[in-house]
This record gives sequence, structure tokens and C-alpha cells, in this order.
Amino acid sequence: MDASDPLRHFREEFVLREGLIYLDGNSLGALPKATLQRMNHAVSEEWGQGLISSWTEADWIKAPKRIGAKIARLVGAEAGEVIVTDSTSVNVFKALTAAISLQEGRTVLLTETGNFPTDGYVMQGLARFSEGAFECRAVAPQKVLDALSDDVAVLLLTHVHYKTAAMRDMAEVTRRAQQAGALVIWDLSHSTGAVEIDLNGANVDFAVGCGYKFLNGGPGAPAFLFAAQRHHHAQPVLSGWFGHARPFGFEEDYEAASGIDRFQCGTPSILAMAALECGVDQMLRADLLEVRRKSIALQELFIKQMRPLCEEFGFELASPTESTQRGSHIAYSHPQAYAMVQALKARDLIGDFRTPDVLRLGITPLYLRYVDIVEAVARLRLVCANREWDREEYRTLAAVT
Amino acid sequence: MDASDPLRHFREEFVLREGLIYLDGNSLGALPKATLQRMNHAVSEEWGQGLISSWTEADWIKAPKRIGAKIARLVGAEAGEVIVTDSTSVNVFKALTAAISLQEGRTVLLTETGNFPTDGYVMQGLARFSEGAFECRAVAPQKVLDALSDDVAVLLLTHVHYKTAAMRDMAEVTRRAQQAGALVIWDLSHSTGAVEIDLNGANVDFAVGCGYKFLNGGPGAPAFLFAAQRHHHAQPVLSGWFGHARPFGFEEDYEAASGIDRFQCGTPSILAMAALECGVDQMLRADLLEVRRKSIALQELFIKQMRPLCEEFGFELASPTESTQRGSHIAYSHPQAYAMVQALKARDLIGDFRTPDVLRLGITPLYLRYVDIVEAVARLRLVCANREWDREEYRTLAAVT
Repeated sequence: MDASDPLRHFREEFVLREGLIYLDGNSLGALPKATLQRMNHAVSEEWGQGLISSWTEADWIKAPKRIGAKIARLVGAEAGEVIVTDSTSVNVFKALTAAISLQEGRTVLLTETGNFPTDGYVMQGLARFSEGAFECRAVAPQKVLDALSDDVAVLLLTHVHYKTAAMRDMAEVTRRAQQAGALVIWDLSHSTGAVEIDLNGANVDFAVGCGYKFLNGGPGAPAFLFAAQRHHHAQPVLSGWFGHARPFGFEEDYEAASGIDRFQCGTPSILAMAALECGVDQMLRADLLEVRRKSIALQELFIKQMRPLCEEFGFELASPTESTQRGSHIAYSHPQAYAMVQALKARDLIGDFRTPDVLRLGITPLYLRYVDIVEAVARLRLVCANREWDREEYRTLAAVT
Repeated sequence: MDASDPLRHFREEFVLREGLIYLDGNSLGALPKATLQRMNHAVSEEWGQGLISSWTEADWIKAPKRIGAKIARLVGAEAGEVIVTDSTSVNVFKALTAAISLQEGRTVLLTETGNFPTDGYVMQGLARFSEGAFECRAVAPQKVLDALSDDVAVLLLTHVHYKTAAMRDMAEVTRRAQQAGALVIWDLSHSTGAVEIDLNGANVDFAVGCGYKFLNGGPGAPAFLFAAQRHHHAQPVLSGWFGHARPFGFEEDYEAASGIDRFQCGTPSILAMAALECGVDQMLRADLLEVRRKSIALQELFIKQMRPLCEEFGFELASPTESTQRGSHIAYSHPQAYAMVQALKARDLIGDFRTPDVLRLGITPLYLRYVDIVEAVARLRLVCANREWDREEYRTLAAVT
């Protein structure tokens, strides 16, 4: 399977030390070798030699929109509809405030329980700040569509669930929400670069996404924001100088830039942008359909290999069984999940734990081989068979990302 | 003067090519050589080899607070009062919203006209979003103290003016504002690492500052936020997961972290943080009193050398004449200022233009020599004497930072 894998050459483009099996690329993507060169150039040449002139001469000033245009190709958007800027959390705030400014009279911010916490936290912060003008409502995942009452201003959902990998039907949910008069914000953190996304095909209003997972943009890479062109008149609340129509006019009054630029705020980190652009450029060279095909094949192999362990050691698949309903990671529930993640690390397999009992394994087709999947399950079998997880020092829950 | 300069050894620590005179370090600081090594390590070792584990093993998770504690030493704050996070603009929003949450019944956001635009823009965005609950008021700089009426919730001022370098008396203004019941936010973008700052000595409420100017943190480096400990109960509006009491508890409801951590929002860019930390570490090795002393000496030399050019070519000092009232740059007005900046660049002297007619020259004592000042004025004299600024291509105002 590895020999006939059309994506097999991508693995050589990453820094991955011998022996390591990295199943956490959905938390922090691996380092593309090209990024090392690019960062060196950005630091020593563009900053060191070009200094301030690089804002124009190395086109730093255009980085947020240029990289945004590249990401647009991965999510089914137009070049001028995506901007790379700030963090996902800050962009959620921008999308929320832009959306409610378009929804006079509607007061509910709707989401689902169990969503990735930061999305809910940002909604709660906004609702609290509004002193009752807006209300935050979180309902069970299966009740979201029924909760689309006529006071819902905006529905914020994650496309691929951070824990279970359950994938929402973006087009259908968007249609139903808009039918009920709501605007929709999709969080694409766990889907960009991993599954097919067609924002405009689904008539999506706003979306946000993450640069440091499947886009391999580096730790804490800048995030991105999508706003459908029909909403480019919305006034952002976070109105900093990089979102101004004439940032270097140094005018007293804020006038939002036309187009997606108005969703910028302060000065962007150019070094962080440089790393992200490398990852995005690399992803653009891959055929996303092949990426998705391989992701599913790797997952199916994983699930098949895991079946005996489920029976023998009590793992339960916490992800949807149907591959078309999963993103690009797999979750298993097990009471010892936390300790197992630690024990696997001692066997040079990096996976992730998610509270309360989830072992989460990221499937990144650009640098994972089929043989890695087989070997990963073999290591997990040893960890279970030898009870390697049963150690005092694995019992304390440390901060893990 | 250079031979007896106690800071003279710092220049060798920077990448500065032969012949270049860089008078724009207050816009983008030069590259410390140590940063090259540090970035290489952060990318290839911490990210490339350590991958996700580096969040704990390379202490990425503590970077915002660790670097904040270092910056605290430069601004007269305690370790737990400064956090490195987001951009200056986003931090202005956080400080504003935190401040007004503490000021029940007061509705005016006060600033001065001619302030660095992004501060005013962020205030305007907030006022617009509040739909009349808050009003943004900008008065002439000399009228600020008289405008402290009993409806002023917060006064936002810049410590050192971005254009003229005029420096406010932080302690006196803070005292007067607080006497009138207002809270005070200081923007330290043009003063951190350049002049003495004693935030707690002046009983300041909130402050924000910039990492890419005198701190040499790289293009678009993360900014910082100071909140006096007595205000650490204020609820931030931008409530993302990195500001949560237990970010990795993945809880449904937001509970702000105790202390300065609550002013974080999303995942920070670790690569950008790494570069900033190098610049801050270097600045901490310098004696800030010596830095200030040399800054003033360089400025006085500059002004003295410029006197004949003022008479002959019509420059006018746009900065305060009294050195104690200036920050660490000098501004001259001249109708041809924009074209002159371009012509100076052709002579390998980088300064900056600020609309409408200001030639702005940054004085960075860590890497500028007295001989550079003499040579800079000599090059400007040639640009004027030969009318080198009088070229067609210098007439169009391009985007300059």
C-alpha cells in the first residue's frame, strides 16, 4: 500500500526522526524541511538585511491576504474572501460580532455542548459584555437544528469535532440555519487541509480555521478568517489600523478597508506568517482528494487493526463508524487513556489524550505511512499486554495540548 | 565619544551591514545575531524534534508569562502583571473593555487627537459596537487634563508620541486622571526599552506595548499587556481558552484564570515569541539608565548637527526642544520629507516618513554610534544640496511603515 501511495514522496519533505510514529499532527503538524530554509531567509535576509523596507520589498504587507488567497483554494472560497490574521479565538470574536451586526433584532448565539471550548468561551465573553443584549445558548449536538428558533442570530459550529472527529454536513446545516434566518460560522480547525471543504458551494457566511494543525504552519501559527463576499460590508468591532482603508494615511477616524482586509486588526507577525506559508504551499501541491482518500484508508486500516484490542483490552471507538462522517483523526475511549498516552510516548509513539477518557490519534496523510499504522497498533498492544501504562508517574494529569 | 561609550559592545551583537545607517529602529528594531540561532533552535529542535511535547518540555506554554515577567523589569511592573500576547491593537481592546467593566456608570472613552491611529480606531470600534452606551472623545493634546469630567471611564494616551516623540509625564497625568475618577491606559509602544518607565511607581492601571520596536523582537512581534494587580479581577471580553483557569480541562463554561493569564486569548505564536524573547533578553543586559543617557546624547548631537541644515534648507524641529520631554526619536518637518526619505535610502540611510511632512529618525542606543549621527546628517546635507530628492519616482506616496 505504501509503495503505490501517490502521496508517498511527501514524507521525505518533513523532519521526522527515525522510529517516531507521530499521531498528533492534528494538534501540531510536523515541520516541513522547506520551512527551515524559509525561516532562515525571513530572519537573516528579510529582517536582518532588508529591515523596515521588507514591508514593501519582501511583500510582508501582503502576507495576510496572499496566504489567505492560498488557503481559499483549500476551502472552496475566492481569493479575496480569506485573510490570515490573529488567533482562531480572536477570529471567532470577529466573525461573531460581524454576524450579529447583520442580524438586527435577533439575540441568541447558538452552539452545541461539547464543542471545542474556546468557541464557546468567546461567545460567553461576548454575551456577558453585552449585558443581556445577547444570550449564549448551547444545546446537545443532535438538537442543534431543532433549536433554530427565530431569535437565533448566529449558529457557530465546528465542522470536524476536536474529540470524536464527527463531521457535520456543512451544506445541509448551513441551509437549515439560513432557512431559519440565522447566519452560520464554521470552525474549520480540524478540517482544513484534511477533508474537502466547499464554503461557497455550501453558501457559508463566515468561517475560521487554524494554521498549526493539518496546514503544518508551526506552533501557534496565525489563524484565518473567511467572510463571504456578500458580508464584506459588516463593521468589525476589532478595528485596528491594519483593517483601515488607508493604514498609512494615519487618519483620525476609522474607515474599514473594503473587502476582507477589514478583518485584520493589528500588525501581523511576519515570522509566524512565513512558517505558515511554507506549510500551505506544500499542501497546495498535494491533491486534496488523494489526501482525503488516503486519510480514510489509513483510518480504516487503523480501525481494523484495533478490533482485537477492543475486545481484549476494552477500547471503544468514540468516532463515527462510517468513514464519510469522520474527519482525519480517530478517538477511542478507555479508562486508562491518559496513562496510555504517556506509556506510548515511552515507545516513541505520540498520540493525544482528551478529557475525560479519550485516546485521540491524528491521521496526516502527507507524512504517515500504512506501515506506521500497523506499527502503532503493535506498540499499543505491547503497552496494554505489559500494562506499561500502570505506573505511578502516569497517574497525574499534566497540562497536555 | 564612541570609544568611551559603555554600550558600544552591543553593536556587534546585531546584524547591520557595512555602510548602512539605520534610523528606523523605532519602527522595526534590527536583528540581534542571537535571534538567528534561537530561531533555528526553535524551528528545528523544539518544533521539528520535540513536536507537540515542546508545549511542556520546551516550556512553550509558559512563554507569554515568562517573557512578560522579563518585560515587567523594563517597565517598572511586577512579574505577574505583564503578559505577552496578541497585537498592540487587540491588547488595547482588552485593556479598554477591562477598564470599562470596572467603571460602572461612566461612559466616555477619552483620548487625544493625533494619537497613533490604531488606539483611536479600537476605541471607535468599541463605542460603535456599544450602540451609544459608550462615547469616544478625542480632544487636543493640551486639553486632555481639562477634559477629565466625571463621565470619563478611561483615559487612553500614548507615553511617547509616535510622530513628535513628545513624552507625557506619566505619573502626573495618571494622578490627575485617577483624581477625576478615570482609569488610565498607557500605550508604551514608543517608550519600552527606550526610556525609564515606572508603571507601579505611577500607579498606572493598564498599559500596552509593542515588541518589534526598541525590543528588537522581529517584524510584527507579539505585543504585551500590563494590568495592575488590583485589576486582575476584571473580566476580559476576549475570553479564549488560553485565558481560562484550566485550559486543558476543556470545560463548557469560561472561568477566567486568576492573575494576568486571563488577558491571554487564543494559542500564542511560539516562533514569534522565541524571536521576541531574544530581543528582550538582550535589552535586559543593558543598563536602561545608560541607554537613556546615550539616547539623549545622540539626539542632542543630531539636533546640533542639524542646525545649519535647518537654516539653509528649511527643516523645522517637530519634536520638543527639551531632551527630557522627548522619547527616543527626532522629528523634523519639511515639505519634501517624503521624497527625502527615498533619496536618503539611495544613500543607504534608512529613516521614516510620517504624514503629512515629517522626517522621523529613530535613535536606538544599542546599535547606533555617535559617528553614525554625524554621517547621517552629512548624507542629508548632500541630499539637500544636490536636490537628490527632486526625482519623479519619489513623488508618489507609497505604503510605508
